[in-house]
Amino acid sequence: MFIHNKRLQYTVRVARPNPGLANLLLEQFGGPQGELAAACRYFAQGLGEDDPGRKDMLMDIATEELSHLEVIGSLIAMLNKGAKGQLAEATQSEAELYRSLNGPGNDSHVTQLLYGGGPALINSAGQLWTAGYIENVGDPSADLRTNIAAEARAKIIYERLINVTDDPDVKDALGFLMTREVAHQQSFEKALYSMQANFPPGKLPGMPAFANTYFNMSQGEGDMRGSWNSDENFEYVSDRDKQHSVDGGDGSASVQQLDQAELADLQALVSRTASDPLADPQTGVDLGAGAPPAR
Amino acid sequence: MFIHNKRLQYTVRVARPNPGLANLLLEQFGGPQGELAAACRYFAQGLGEDDPGRKDMLMDIATEELSHLEVIGSLIAMLNKGAKGQLAEATQSEAELYRSLNGPGNDSHVTQLLYGGGPALINSAGQLWTAGYIENVGDPSADLRTNIAAEARAKIIYERLINVTDDPDVKDALGFLMTREVAHQQSFEKALYSMQANFPPGKLPGMPAFANTYFNMSQGEGDMRGSWNSDENFEYVSDRDKQHSVDGGDGSASVQQLDQAELADLQALVSRTASDPLADPQTGVDLGAGAPPAR
Amino acid sequence: MFIHNKRLQYTVRVARPNPGLANLLLEQFGGPQGELAAACRYFAQGLGEDDPGRKDMLMDIATEELSHLEVIGSLIAMLNKGAKGQLAEATQSEAELYRSLNGPGNDSHVTQLLYGGGPALINSAGQLWTAGYIENVGDPSADLRTNIAAEARAKIIYERLINVTDDPDVKDALGFLMTREVAHQQSFEKALYSMQANFPPGKLPGMPAFANTYFNMSQGEGDMRGSWNSDENFEYVSDRDKQHSVDGGDGSASVQQLDQAELADLQALVSRTASDPLADPQTGVDLGAGAPPAR
Amino acid sequence: MFIHNKRLQYTVRVARPNPGLANLLLEQFGGPQGELAAACRYFAQGLGEDDPGRKDMLMDIATEELSHLEVIGSLIAMLNKGAKGQLAEATQSEAELYRSLNGPGNDSHVTQLLYGGGPALINSAGQLWTAGYIENVGDPSADLRTNIAAEARAKIIYERLINVTDDPDVKDALGFLMTREVAHQQSFEKALYSMQANFPPGKLPGMPAFANTYFNMSQGEGDMRGSWNSDENFEYVSDRDKQHSVDGGDGSASVQQLDQAELADLQALVSRTASDPLADPQTGVDLGAGAPPAR
Amino acid sequence: MFIHNKRLQYTVRVARPNPGLANLLLEQFGGPQGELAAACRYFAQGLGEDDPGRKDMLMDIATEELSHLEVIGSLIAMLNKGAKGQLAEATQSEAELYRSLNGPGNDSHVTQLLYGGGPALINSAGQLWTAGYIENVGDPSADLRTNIAAEARAKIIYERLINVTDDPDVKDALGFLMTREVAHQQSFEKALYSMQANFPPGKLPGMPAFANTYFNMSQGEGDMRGSWNSDENFEYVSDRDKQHSVDGGDGSASVQQLDQAELADLQALVSRTASDPLADPQTGVDLGAGAPPAR
Amino acid sequence: MFIHNKRLQYTVRVARPNPGLANLLLEQFGGPQGELAAACRYFAQGLGEDDPGRKDMLMDIATEELSHLEVIGSLIAMLNKGAKGQLAEATQSEAELYRSLNGPGNDSHVTQLLYGGGPALINSAGQLWTAGYIENVGDPSADLRTNIAAEARAKIIYERLINVTDDPDVKDALGFLMTREVAHQQSFEKALYSMQANFPPGKLPGMPAFANTYFNMSQGEGDMRGSWNSDENFEYVSDRDKQHSVDGGDGSASVQQLDQAELADLQALVSRTASDPLADPQTGVDLGAGAPPAR
Repeated sequence: MFIHNKRLQYTVRVARPNPGLANLLLEQFGGPQGELAAACRYFAQGLGEDDPGRKDMLMDIATEELSHLEVIGSLIAMLNKGAKGQLAEATQSEAELYRSLNGPGNDSHVTQLLYGGGPALINSAGQLWTAGYIENVGDPSADLRTNIAAEARAKIIYERLINVTDDPDVKDALGFLMTREVAHQQSFEKALYSMQANFPPGKLPGMPAFANTYFNMSQGEGDMRGSWNSDENFEYVSDRDKQHSVDGGDGSASVQQLDQAELADLQALVSRTASDPLADPQTGVDLGAGAPPAR
Repeated sequence: MFIHNKRLQYTVRVARPNPGLANLLLEQFGGPQGELAAACRYFAQGLGEDDPGRKDMLMDIATEELSHLEVIGSLIAMLNKGAKGQLAEATQSEAELYRSLNGPGNDSHVTQLLYGGGPALINSAGQLWTAGYIENVGDPSADLRTNIAAEARAKIIYERLINVTDDPDVKDALGFLMTREVAHQQSFEKALYSMQANFPPGKLPGMPAFANTYFNMSQGEGDMRGSWNSDENFEYVSDRDKQHSVDGGDGSASVQQLDQAELADLQALVSRTASDPLADPQTGVDLGAGAPPAR
Repeated sequence: MFIHNKRLQYTVRVARPNPGLANLLLEQFGGPQGELAAACRYFAQGLGEDDPGRKDMLMDIATEELSHLEVIGSLIAMLNKGAKGQLAEATQSEAELYRSLNGPGNDSHVTQLLYGGGPALINSAGQLWTAGYIENVGDPSADLRTNIAAEARAKIIYERLINVTDDPDVKDALGFLMTREVAHQQSFEKALYSMQANFPPGKLPGMPAFANTYFNMSQGEGDMRGSWNSDENFEYVSDRDKQHSVDGGDGSASVQQLDQAELADLQALVSRTASDPLADPQTGVDLGAGAPPAR
Repeated sequence: MFIHNKRLQYTVRVARPNPGLANLLLEQFGGPQGELAAACRYFAQGLGEDDPGRKDMLMDIATEELSHLEVIGSLIAMLNKGAKGQLAEATQSEAELYRSLNGPGNDSHVTQLLYGGGPALINSAGQLWTAGYIENVGDPSADLRTNIAAEARAKIIYERLINVTDDPDVKDALGFLMTREVAHQQSFEKALYSMQANFPPGKLPGMPAFANTYFNMSQGEGDMRGSWNSDENFEYVSDRDKQHSVDGGDGSASVQQLDQAELADLQALVSRTASDPLADPQTGVDLGAGAPPAR
Repeated sequence: MFIHNKRLQYTVRVARPNPGLANLLLEQFGGPQGELAAACRYFAQGLGEDDPGRKDMLMDIATEELSHLEVIGSLIAMLNKGAKGQLAEATQSEAELYRSLNGPGNDSHVTQLLYGGGPALINSAGQLWTAGYIENVGDPSADLRTNIAAEARAKIIYERLINVTDDPDVKDALGFLMTREVAHQQSFEKALYSMQANFPPGKLPGMPAFANTYFNMSQGEGDMRGSWNSDENFEYVSDRDKQHSVDGGDGSASVQQLDQAELADLQALVSRTASDPLADPQTGVDLGAGAPPAR
Repeated sequence: MFIHNKRLQYTVRVARPNPGLANLLLEQFGGPQGELAAACRYFAQGLGEDDPGRKDMLMDIATEELSHLEVIGSLIAMLNKGAKGQLAEATQSEAELYRSLNGPGNDSHVTQLLYGGGPALINSAGQLWTAGYIENVGDPSADLRTNIAAEARAKIIYERLINVTDDPDVKDALGFLMTREVAHQQSFEKALYSMQANFPPGKLPGMPAFANTYFNMSQGEGDMRGSWNSDENFEYVSDRDKQHSVDGGDGSASVQQLDQAELADLQALVSRTASDPLADPQTGVDLGAGAPPAR
């Protein structure tokens, strides 16, 4: 069960309203690398998890991410505090209000017009949050790697927001949130490597013939070698003729057996819709390329 | 520039049509863990990359993923080869065709009715592919971790598809695709650790006070300890009173300075929309709870 | 700040696994009327709210909805407990596993293949959750009505799920969740009517000439009258000629003033793309209607 | 059947082109609270409705909303009339055209570049309209409440648009559209309360033990009481120990009966993926934290 | 202005309820090739159109498509008439109801549980309708071609639905709707070719050097020639070395001029995140490949 | 199989960084009319195609579109080259960086903050790419028309981008990409008309009574005639009474046969939720319209 304490995990102080900055912070409220995505990712994993240690950790961190969602949302709410009243009460002229929504450095018209200055589950471009951001597949050797990557990404977005913020208290709160991603990444890493044999992920082994091959698919000036494709670690295949049909077949696609009725229908379809390679038909392009429209 | 060779990277042989299985394979064609997502992820990273080694590797693997997209798409096309002609030519009775779309073990009506038996950029539930599946943030210390995680997830989905397929040639091709994810994960791991100092991701250091703290947010029977929250590695905070307001403030949210006009408007708004805690108003529920509607 | 207690708000007991039922319950986990939508709706409102009573209530109920998300998610996880291990360990034959994903009464292949039996933020059709489900506009006279409606809808979905569930313990837990929607609706109603003058919503009055007019736009056999369009309550306009141009203008759309350059460009565009009403051109349809393709 | 009269319901006069304002008006054309959403909501309800009075009303109002969609769309088209020709004919310099798309107060580049100045089914941020905005559940006690709330929200958005518009004719047309939402809300309210016993929504009663309970889930300074959680109306539960396991159980989640094979597979899975709480493994973080990359 | 006549454009008679068939028909109510998409496409074009003939035609056909949306929606409502009451009233056992949602040939659980048997703006897979289906760009030489293609696609989907329907009255109504797409296509074709010089679309001519070139990008067994790439109509380029860098440059990407500060920052970034091609670092794969987790 | 050559199809030279222009170019990278959509459309068609000539052409053009995706992505990457380093290294002041994200003529904050200056699969408004942009239905008489239309639209977007670009090398590369759409349209036209009898699309003929009828649904001043609705080509129906119930029925919707139980349930539902046309109930509007809240 979740419980709520009215105190925030980190005190939010904002020097003065700044709806343009608030709009940027939406990235971490309703954006793909934001706190709602983080909370949902770990919470859903936790519910399905059977290992007691991982389950506990996932619920710990999911709960903290919800608390971060509250911190970032409170920052956004405070930064919009001035604009909110102005649009609702409309004591300024229309022209002044219009400018306040669209001024340079202030791409906040969606926040104001549609959401009334409240935090919304969109990113800074107004893209609606989608569960497509949640990559869970229900296997810990994959999901923990997903979490490690997600923490790394969230850290980067906070770093960028810090770089464009000059309100020291906002900067400070963003610094806290950024740092917690660093801490969480460490926990997820420990949990991953506490699973014996977490590579390859899952249970099935790979086919030995292809597990350590590197196909040099992009060729030309600038071909580089390194440990990621070195002869020491991989069989490096540059020969174009050894990159296709690697199973030794003919590289075609076929179905071995269609029943009579299926075959007859397919042939009828092919014949009915055949293109005639010998024709050179007049086309819509010919009709449309400027000849006078007349019959 | 991309070039196409008509031979597939892996020969596709399908024993007989099976549109229900084809529908499941859509997960790896147009699903979140599928080959289009993989190709787009690495290709977009590669275009933005300035390190020549990583750029080359990203283009190599992106190109191979496009070739895998072709293999999985060809499997889907072959498995639908029977159904495609039947619906187009309609030589069977309507009832037979209807049953062929909706039989047990065959959730393929969307593939047939909407897409005519061709591979479509949807997952096995019919969810349209979305770029929300692409998590790139343009920083290699984050994006390489993203790639490692994505390869792990794709490996898992292939493993599950193999587990439910009894056509040995389909199984074999899926095995190849699964194995390549294992190989790619290894390359991405090598590339990640070939960057000196890739942790913490990005450039800014965390705040030392919070970088190694673990907040025990979920409490109750079943609290577990392990390296992910051990005293050796983390400061473990269970005291509820030390989990909030960790900056030492009062845990509230505030804006320090609203100008006069902003303040006046905000107060007007608050006053105009105030809720009266002393009232006990009649409500719509009272009206709707079954009292006879009367004038 | 959010805190988590490992005990659920309501104990979850499931008689035996039933992945098909689990799939239906996804409606209230990741569906439009589900608990994540509820929690997000009230939480985001609460963050932006300045009235202390409403803010407190919104956070109370948001927190409870998160606890409900945990209950419904736990039901789903338990109902999938059998399928999860079977697909991961693959000790059955492929054909048995395939049937277990696609059997009659069991549309759960997405849950199993893509999410590994864990609860996912999708509805029962596999549609990804989207913040398009959150209708907040940041005005309490609108948002409280939104909440009242949302509780009513969620109640209906729970009622339907109860009607198709025969596991008594699942039924019982769903009954609890359904009942809480009823309670929440009552609180939101009280809060709405505790705002003096909440109708019309917002601050601007309507134009008196049109505020009590009812346009009978759909005409024919079956025209019905009731209090919603009665002469007592509304001016009822059936005359088709009084339904258009109700401002007394000519019902056209015009821009009063284009500058010279704009006008010139527009005229050039119109002229360049004019359709000739006198021509009867040959078209692609003529070309395509079966005439032999010839040069 | 729908019929169209070339006269608008309300005459549209626009003083002069203003693509930035047009972009804001998109909120009510292709935004979540806009006229397409309204028309679709009531139309789909009307088609499924069996009560003749409600069905008639729903079709009346759906049809009027389509007419409003035409009014707001015509406003947008007129406001873009200048920009449309300029981009298509390109008689200005590139730099002038570029500035005209991106000037201060004019976030209209999507309208111009992608849609050529025509009204598009996006909101002012460019977010594509989605049927996720339509909340219908097919029960009138819920759907009418949905409609009441939707009208309230639409009224608010129009009010805000009026507040930022200084073209008096545009303001006037927006005022008409806003007013009609007020009228529609009244009709939907009448229809709701014309249903005897519309609360609780649907047919099933709630569980008496939980129907009038209020859980004080958010605690701390600022706890407020009012009719929405008063002792008069609710049992108010603040004791944290009475908020969980309210059924009297142990608050855990369990499945009563797994068959032998399911149990064996689940145990195998748990064992195979167990995390070792005693290990303190080296992790990717250790590798990545700046130690010189070497073997 | 839109007006509604209670009579349908085509009488809807359904032999008996069939929710599985209703679900398939959703393709043309809320699917990508369906009537809402058609109506929105032409209506939005019509609002932005300045040519009086095209504008009139677009509004004629948009209005008819709305009437078709009503016909297809009424078919769906009738086919769900039995299921709707059963789920709402729940006089059957839960098991019977469950089976009625999930029986073979009946993938209708979303329609029933979430939408209560009413028509919903989803396709047959439950995918929410999205304005991504509307391809308008605001240029008639493109938009009319879009309409021609859209009518062709809609015709195909109706044909497939007819092929799987055995209720003669439903078949008949679908036949009407299908036929109207054929008629509309003809009107759009006439309108396209009534524009003088509609090819190439828009105003700018192509670069002569590349306007009639065909790049043979996919090579191997099965290379085919026809009028679409014949020497008569195109310069056919198969030589791989003439397919890249066709401008005569070096085929690389470069920015000619970065200012000092930009260059310094970029170099700092490159250096900070450089990958070391000489290192062969230990990686997470090494850690995870089964070595005993220990320090 | 796809292969990659490090040389671009067209050399990319950018005079100097311009993130605002880069943002506009995103339309053709991750927008609805862009190169990813084109490549996916033709590639998926090609995989499902059985006609060898069309299949080859589709793979040729799909491959070229991938090469165009690389060109447009490289343009975007080059135009962001300055901003990328600045945000990552943060050697400027926060205020300068903030302004560089939000300056006039530069709506690029999403590209910088979320994607780090790399090309992203979004359009210029930040809308995530969705497979809803891919309209394939698996029938060549429809899909080829889709392709013709898509090429026309893409040509228009490139034309507009050229019109707002003043960097001559960028303009040149865009000119190449635009021209190729013109060439592709020609190939698709040839392929369409190389199919004998491609109209009406598909196999079923239309119903003769309705195949050449034109319903004048939008009436009023401005009714226009042309070949698209001329008496020569169509039966033109303006009489409102001949536009409905065109089958000669009564224009109603009915289900012929409900079984006993279905009928009983439906009647119970109707009765339970009946609206009372005689009542004039008090409503929430009455409660909310300003009467003092009191019991």
